[in-house]
Amino acid sequence: MNDRLNRQIAVVGLGLMGSSIVVSLLASGYRVVALAPIPGEKNPAIQHIVTLLRHADKSNLLPKGLDYCVRNLTVTEDYREIGGCTFVQECVIEDMGIKNKVYHQITNHVSRETVIASNTSAIPISDLQQFVSNPHRFIGVHWAEPAYMTRFLEVTCGAKTDLDIAKRVMELGKSWGKEPTLLRKDIRGFITNRLMYAVYREALTLVENGDVTMEDADKVFRYDVGSWITLMGIFRRMDFMGFSDYIDSFEGILPKLSNRTDVPDMMRPLVAERARGIHNGKGFYDYNEQQAKAWEEAFAQFNKEIYDLATRYTEKHISEKAYNEEKKLSKI
Amino acid sequence: MNDRLNRQIAVVGLGLMGSSIVVSLLASGYRVVALAPIPGEKNPAIQHIVTLLRHADKSNLLPKGLDYCVRNLTVTEDYREIGGCTFVQECVIEDMGIKNKVYHQITNHVSRETVIASNTSAIPISDLQQFVSNPHRFIGVHWAEPAYMTRFLEVTCGAKTDLDIAKRVMELGKSWGKEPTLLRKDIRGFITNRLMYAVYREALTLVENGDVTMEDADKVFRYDVGSWITLMGIFRRMDFMGFSDYIDSFEGILPKLSNRTDVPDMMRPLVAERARGIHNGKGFYDYNEQQAKAWEEAFAQFNKEIYDLATRYTEKHISEKAYNEEKKLSKI
Repeated sequence: MNDRLNRQIAVVGLGLMGSSIVVSLLASGYRVVALAPIPGEKNPAIQHIVTLLRHADKSNLLPKGLDYCVRNLTVTEDYREIGGCTFVQECVIEDMGIKNKVYHQITNHVSRETVIASNTSAIPISDLQQFVSNPHRFIGVHWAEPAYMTRFLEVTCGAKTDLDIAKRVMELGKSWGKEPTLLRKDIRGFITNRLMYAVYREALTLVENGDVTMEDADKVFRYDVGSWITLMGIFRRMDFMGFSDYIDSFEGILPKLSNRTDVPDMMRPLVAERARGIHNGKGFYDYNEQQAKAWEEAFAQFNKEIYDLATRYTEKHISEKAYNEEKKLSKI
Repeated sequence: MNDRLNRQIAVVGLGLMGSSIVVSLLASGYRVVALAPIPGEKNPAIQHIVTLLRHADKSNLLPKGLDYCVRNLTVTEDYREIGGCTFVQECVIEDMGIKNKVYHQITNHVSRETVIASNTSAIPISDLQQFVSNPHRFIGVHWAEPAYMTRFLEVTCGAKTDLDIAKRVMELGKSWGKEPTLLRKDIRGFITNRLMYAVYREALTLVENGDVTMEDADKVFRYDVGSWITLMGIFRRMDFMGFSDYIDSFEGILPKLSNRTDVPDMMRPLVAERARGIHNGKGFYDYNEQQAKAWEEAFAQFNKEIYDLATRYTEKHISEKAYNEEKKLSKI
């Protein structure tokens, strides 16, 4: 996987997520073989990828331009075309049987050196690993939507993944403009989900107990947590708050937190009526067609703005500022 | 508490938080009697308030101008001057004894109609309520720092607080330009802390178990959660994701989450060496003087930007957009 010599990556599975990943890789200068494993998926995928490329271009995310990206793209249904790729990103649906078939095809067509990555967020990497002939080169690489406009990339080792491979995938992720994170053990729910389900559990419990309304819990996260999270994350937030009260707070608050393991009651009727949130108008909140559209548009726009904002506040920027200040002082 | 007739509010306690609250109230057009309960606190407080007012002015947060705000401000050590106020915001240090003395002074000088609010984030409102003669008019009103640049305002009822008073305080909070949230029961840790300690517990456990590094847990929150939280909060996020996988995920993930009630080991050495994070350079991360300063400056700047961003993406804006779209369609 020498990405200096071979800047060609295969993406297998061209649904919403796969197409968006293709665009992200093209935007960072890679050649991409985009493989549609489902008959009939190829032409709609081409159209969708081109639409996304135009959007990325309008958002100034294609430093080498749209034409360059289009020239670097191959869309195919033929597994033989991925033969030269040393990194394959799988993003087909979350179905063990289908993934098994796809891995079988992939391993039949690539070299033993090729790293195979799954975008799964639901199936343990250690379980998927058993389907490939070279499990130590199999790894989880989980993207966020839209892939070309987020910095998130979650790299997850399965039980048999070689840690050196993981480190090289982390470097590869950086070359895609991401801020990859490494989960060394294949724990259920990976990192984001673990942390967010801890929040969901507590929030659902507070609302079910009548302590707070859903709307107010949302406001708290938007206006309090939202005002620092993109800059600080979790641990640096604690550094900002100082530590004097923490022991008291941990001792006082942890015993009161919800430890439930059952599905909160608020979820059940939603699942029963096949709620799909903004996608069919039924969720914790209700949405008519215009409202769903307004929220989707707001997110697309917001996402672009927060991406730009985050770019100007990376740790690297802040450390460099501190370093330059220090150098200036030492010269006086 | 007719805030149309009496737009005069008392703030008792002029430390960092109190001064910042004074500025927020002045910025929203209220007259403020700022009371320094500690001898010698008055003059430094005046200086600090003026500095913050200048910062608010530079940030375009004083629609009526700096002079107007200065004219509306009285700084005093004399409790008699708060006599005409129908709302008193207490923000002295988190010490039951001191708060008791301060409430005694306040209740001696205001009418029985006056609402008394505490900014506490550590002491239950039901406990503080016992110190005042009119407990049903006592309430928690918890601000975020810097008060004039955040929309957060957490209103908390104690066991004896009148719910109608709470609702009027919510309206008052809106007139200060906040997005107030109401916690009907005085639960330990209020809302934000409950939700964030659920995250801290899980994150500290994942790091202690070697599943993920502290740096990577921070990145996950910055780049994934950070990319939507300010727009959506918690429940609307679930609406965006759709519900199809949620039951499986709840059943799969909840039983794996940390339920510990002890203080995580990672915290103990930090507390033992009196770590105060960026305030003394010792925390989860280390900071030299320049680094601490660079982070503080980055936060001040970031905070202004995210405040502006959040202003452009309120629920009201998004609903209005949907409503206008609907009206346009119905005309066709």
